[in-house]
Amino acid sequence: MDKYRLIFNEEVNKYIQLYAHIKHLIEINQIEDEEKLPSIRELADFLHLNKVTVINAYKKLQMEGYANQKIGSGTYAKKKDAIRGFKKSYSATFKRLNSGKLNDMIDFTGETTSADFFPVADLKAVLNDVLDRDGAEALIYQDALGYERLRERINEKFWGNSLDYDDILIVSGAQQGIDIVSKALINVNDNIIVEKPTYSGALSVFKSRKANIFEVPIENDGVDLDALKAILKKNKIKCFYFMSYFQNPSTVSYSDYKKQELLKLAEEHDFFIIEDDYLSELIYDSDIKYSSMKSFDRYDRVVYIKSFSKIFLPGIRIGYLICPKEYKDSVQNSKVNTDISTSSLMQRALEMYMERDYWIEHIKLLNIKYKERYEFMKKEIEVKLSGKIDFSPPGGGLHFYLRLSEKISLTTIELFYKLRERGVLITPGVMFYKHSNQGERYFKVGFSQTDCDKIEKGIDIIADILIEAER
Amino acid sequence: MDKYRLIFNEEVNKYIQLYAHIKHLIEINQIEDEEKLPSIRELADFLHLNKVTVINAYKKLQMEGYANQKIGSGTYAKKKDAIRGFKKSYSATFKRLNSGKLNDMIDFTGETTSADFFPVADLKAVLNDVLDRDGAEALIYQDALGYERLRERINEKFWGNSLDYDDILIVSGAQQGIDIVSKALINVNDNIIVEKPTYSGALSVFKSRKANIFEVPIENDGVDLDALKAILKKNKIKCFYFMSYFQNPSTVSYSDYKKQELLKLAEEHDFFIIEDDYLSELIYDSDIKYSSMKSFDRYDRVVYIKSFSKIFLPGIRIGYLICPKEYKDSVQNSKVNTDISTSSLMQRALEMYMERDYWIEHIKLLNIKYKERYEFMKKEIEVKLSGKIDFSPPGGGLHFYLRLSEKISLTTIELFYKLRERGVLITPGVMFYKHSNQGERYFKVGFSQTDCDKIEKGIDIIADILIEAER
Repeated sequence: MDKYRLIFNEEVNKYIQLYAHIKHLIEINQIEDEEKLPSIRELADFLHLNKVTVINAYKKLQMEGYANQKIGSGTYAKKKDAIRGFKKSYSATFKRLNSGKLNDMIDFTGETTSADFFPVADLKAVLNDVLDRDGAEALIYQDALGYERLRERINEKFWGNSLDYDDILIVSGAQQGIDIVSKALINVNDNIIVEKPTYSGALSVFKSRKANIFEVPIENDGVDLDALKAILKKNKIKCFYFMSYFQNPSTVSYSDYKKQELLKLAEEHDFFIIEDDYLSELIYDSDIKYSSMKSFDRYDRVVYIKSFSKIFLPGIRIGYLICPKEYKDSVQNSKVNTDISTSSLMQRALEMYMERDYWIEHIKLLNIKYKERYEFMKKEIEVKLSGKIDFSPPGGGLHFYLRLSEKISLTTIELFYKLRERGVLITPGVMFYKHSNQGERYFKVGFSQTDCDKIEKGIDIIADILIEAER
Repeated sequence: MDKYRLIFNEEVNKYIQLYAHIKHLIEINQIEDEEKLPSIRELADFLHLNKVTVINAYKKLQMEGYANQKIGSGTYAKKKDAIRGFKKSYSATFKRLNSGKLNDMIDFTGETTSADFFPVADLKAVLNDVLDRDGAEALIYQDALGYERLRERINEKFWGNSLDYDDILIVSGAQQGIDIVSKALINVNDNIIVEKPTYSGALSVFKSRKANIFEVPIENDGVDLDALKAILKKNKIKCFYFMSYFQNPSTVSYSDYKKQELLKLAEEHDFFIIEDDYLSELIYDSDIKYSSMKSFDRYDRVVYIKSFSKIFLPGIRIGYLICPKEYKDSVQNSKVNTDISTSSLMQRALEMYMERDYWIEHIKLLNIKYKERYEFMKKEIEVKLSGKIDFSPPGGGLHFYLRLSEKISLTTIELFYKLRERGVLITPGVMFYKHSNQGERYFKVGFSQTDCDKIEKGIDIIADILIEAER
């Protein structure tokens, strides 16, 4: 009963404060799923409250999905929605972070490269030269496929002119790529397969299309083919979504063998594949070679999505996709219906940025800087978290994916709350599964927003808390 | 039979040429809906073809939805899909236009302001000053709602600080506004009401959400309230979408009375309203006063969407929306799932552009320039198309909506093809209706991409063709 104790302030309605307190207890697992809450009389007596206050707090818990009332028996905590509650709290933290209000924290949740390394002067020069060259032309709508010269340039720089540049569609980042492809090709009740775990932003899009989502576990060289085949045997599948390098969150990279097997399956069972190539520029381990699934795609089955925002110029919001000829028209219409076209000035600036090879210099710089952080953080984890977590170093990318060992008596949601109090932010695994009650033993730590100094401090704090939590 | 005559070239398969020819005949109404096509033997003899060639052409017509085969009876033209075919041909014309390949045409289809009037130097100054002030900060992700200072500035400049600026969400243009609101709030089989006719880009979005769409005819001061009430009586409605000023395509502006009545109905019948305020900056008739429905919205029922791309900086892709508190979270999540956020550099540039009052000077200039064209085109239409078309001058905006008089023996799709041959582009009314067989007597002519010289030439050509077509 003691955990229900609460000191009320004068500013907020008491029932709201009581509701918020109990909600918090559920979120941090101090109240378990299905645990019976105290009776109304009991809690009112214990906290010296009017019974109506408790009744209103319980009502609000029910309304928000944190409790169930069973007639004649009482009120019970609801854990599944507590995880949903955690997700809200997590993204609220993010919103504050993004608006700069939590700048002093050690942020291991970063998804994009740091602003520190970005050559603003180069971009400024390019923007000015584009406006001098093109004038107002640079500010009007483009061809619906995107600025023609940018599509030519992408074909030249990334594909050795092997593509028809009219098969390239410029989009406002990879998230938009996933969204417009889904709107064009995925309908209510279509079956689609994703990796387990997978990127939450993609999951949200597929859920919003009301697709049936199958999850296939990921192994150390890509998705489990046997599990995938078992699904294909019983179901007509529309699409498989995956990340070829440093998969988010598992950090797995696909072997060429698995890429080719998946292509064969796609042809055999007539589904298409979305390849989200979000981070292949950052390879630190020389054993890892780059070859996209798209480059093997002789059946024209792969929608290839590439973001420049992730690694390169996050605020610029540009990426591109390459579409099988069969789907080209509908994906292009979907882009028009989504936002007409992507900012034309930025497309022109990016084209010139590539033409001048600024981009390749920038990628080289990032590889040097991030490899340093990667090696440092890997060692910190190996030394300081030894025995408390398991992980496989990915050899590239911007994050590690850690699993709590059996002897740690915490979920990673609890770990999140404890770390946040001490100024450290991580991403719990629950964000990456279709069913929110999975992934509680995993968490993700990224190093794009933290220099070596912050990495050291952050890992020290994680070690502290895990030592306390050893059974 | 003579209309089937066709001279083949050597480059393309004959059956493809035959298919394309018949498809064209259907599109321009030379073959009527449900008209029986010649038998295979007949056509093969007439054109000196192998029968297989005709069979293949007919097969392709069926596959593409231009014909039906009735067993034992023959093959029949299909008109409804011909209009769909026209729409494809229309947007193909557009794509070529946008990529600059048809620059010599007189383009009355323009939807945005002309690049001619845009002060590039001001924007360039602003971009440089933003990069000098903010450095790499200007290039990283923002708060999910958009750049805070831009939201404050919008509140100050357009709403006299009457809003909570956290209720403003920055989006990548009005089309994206419609898309993310729909994804957040409209589900399969939800009932929604649109104006008849209405903006095709909105119709596409609602169709893609698989909503049930009701159309309500528009009168000269807004939608027909009795027809709307009749629908409300029998159906639970989720949403009403409308344009408050210079409705696209009808050019109607709403009276304050209708705005307020609609708000009452929304409160009474518990639906929300999307107000697409796409062009209210351009008012030439001093009798028309500006007051958005949102400014009357005491029930918090209106999602207000404003594009800056339409009138202001088309290539910049920025707009904003104001959302009822009830829907704020889900609309914001929908934005994140759509493209994370809108280009941060452009948001900062726009904020500074507004701060320095460049925007208000630019709008003043546009009003002077476009009023000139508006008055000129209005007179040209009144004088040269008198008796051939009916229309009501809108008193603002960037286009007119014309109805062919009874004595003209053309549909506006036929008119489109005839005009395109003579270098003039218009938008037939069929683009603006849910059922594509409506709107054939209407067409839209805009003057944003045509100076007075081109307007004069274009109207002369339209007059020519309509004189020929008088019964």
